[in-house]
Amino acid sequence: MHLLDHEVTMAFLRYGTILIVKMMLMSFITAFFRMRKKAFANPEDTTSFGKGENAKKYLRTDPDVERVRRIHLNDLENIVPFLFAGFFYSMSGVNLSTALLHFRIFLGSRIFHTIAYLIPLPQPSRGLAWMAGYLVTFSMLYRIIMIAFTTS
Amino acid sequence: MHLLDHEVTMAFLRYGTILIVKMMLMSFITAFFRMRKKAFANPEDTTSFGKGENAKKYLRTDPDVERVRRIHLNDLENIVPFLFAGFFYSMSGVNLSTALLHFRIFLGSRIFHTIAYLIPLPQPSRGLAWMAGYLVTFSMLYRIIMIAFTTS
Amino acid sequence: MHLLDHEVTMAFLRYGTILIVKMMLMSFITAFFRMRKKAFANPEDTTSFGKGENAKKYLRTDPDVERVRRIHLNDLENIVPFLFAGFFYSMSGVNLSTALLHFRIFLGSRIFHTIAYLIPLPQPSRGLAWMAGYLVTFSMLYRIIMIAFTTS
Repeated sequence: MHLLDHEVTMAFLRYGTILIVKMMLMSFITAFFRMRKKAFANPEDTTSFGKGENAKKYLRTDPDVERVRRIHLNDLENIVPFLFAGFFYSMSGVNLSTALLHFRIFLGSRIFHTIAYLIPLPQPSRGLAWMAGYLVTFSMLYRIIMIAFTTS
Repeated sequence: MHLLDHEVTMAFLRYGTILIVKMMLMSFITAFFRMRKKAFANPEDTTSFGKGENAKKYLRTDPDVERVRRIHLNDLENIVPFLFAGFFYSMSGVNLSTALLHFRIFLGSRIFHTIAYLIPLPQPSRGLAWMAGYLVTFSMLYRIIMIAFTTS
Repeated sequence: MHLLDHEVTMAFLRYGTILIVKMMLMSFITAFFRMRKKAFANPEDTTSFGKGENAKKYLRTDPDVERVRRIHLNDLENIVPFLFAGFFYSMSGVNLSTALLHFRIFLGSRIFHTIAYLIPLPQPSRGLAWMAGYLVTFSMLYRIIMIAFTTS
């Protein structure tokens, strides 16, 4: 197929799939923390821990669960723009090494962001990790905008 | 056009559009529950129910509204990865019947997930529905990864 | 490249990139409001404001911060479907002026939605802005569905 013959698109697919898998793993980590901290959002999730009032006490928010949920939402807010930008960027005639630099910094920034958020590391670790990925996405969007606004 | 001539991509588009419409309908269901339960997030949304203190009592969270909002967020967390994976999967040379099997299980899993979440059905109904869609997405990602990491 | 030679796809890219940038800016506006209102979600974000109990008081939700976060989530819920629909819509053989009408109404609706949400303007300003973008997305999805379900 056309798209899958292209080396930059293939590079995008390697990094894009890793990022999607990383984002999807946040669902598992959320479930793991909900189990470990016994903190659930739905009454039907607590029935295995008891009945009636006994189960109700597990219907609560927990700081660690909420922390993982914020990482997941932050992934959605940042990885979705990366996938949109990266897809068109990889078809923009960019050379492979420049594209790989973008993809690698973004992947590194998201993995470090998650580690810094989970442990947590003191700020500005998490903020700088987030910023690196944010700027990489803007750099890719800038190239797309330059093409889309000048060749119309 | 190139992409739209391809039968697996067309199948992906049938299931992808249904899933997007299903996800967008969650906005309507949220609005419906907010109206019915009179539970709003913004002061400006409550003014038709009274003024001042009278309106403030509708600024509250409601378990049913929060439940629908969790379904919507869960859709975002799962359908977005499916759309990314399904798009490239449909261009990976997969045969139509295998692709349809993936798309149909995913669609079924998300519809059953929403029903199980809304009613709600006892667990593990919702958990298993979620898991089915999750595994289907991983199966598609696996194929993309095999291609992207071996032909680079 | 194939996709980037096509004038409707180029138009989609102009509007799509503006919408992605607009959505990403919500992260900055959230950070700005968190700083200004001193309302943070993570203990490690408050350490520059003091230690121990003194820092804990900044671990709180603030109505304005939550408002910006709802705009960001609403963007995700609506702009992601637009990007999916718009991408395939722009390859569906639609003429440029019809496509531009869709893209422009959608962009206008999302910008007005954000303004109406931030100020906030009295309802139904925000509701109508949201509805306009919602209907535009459905109009694009309708065209894709007509093609995908009749040519299979």
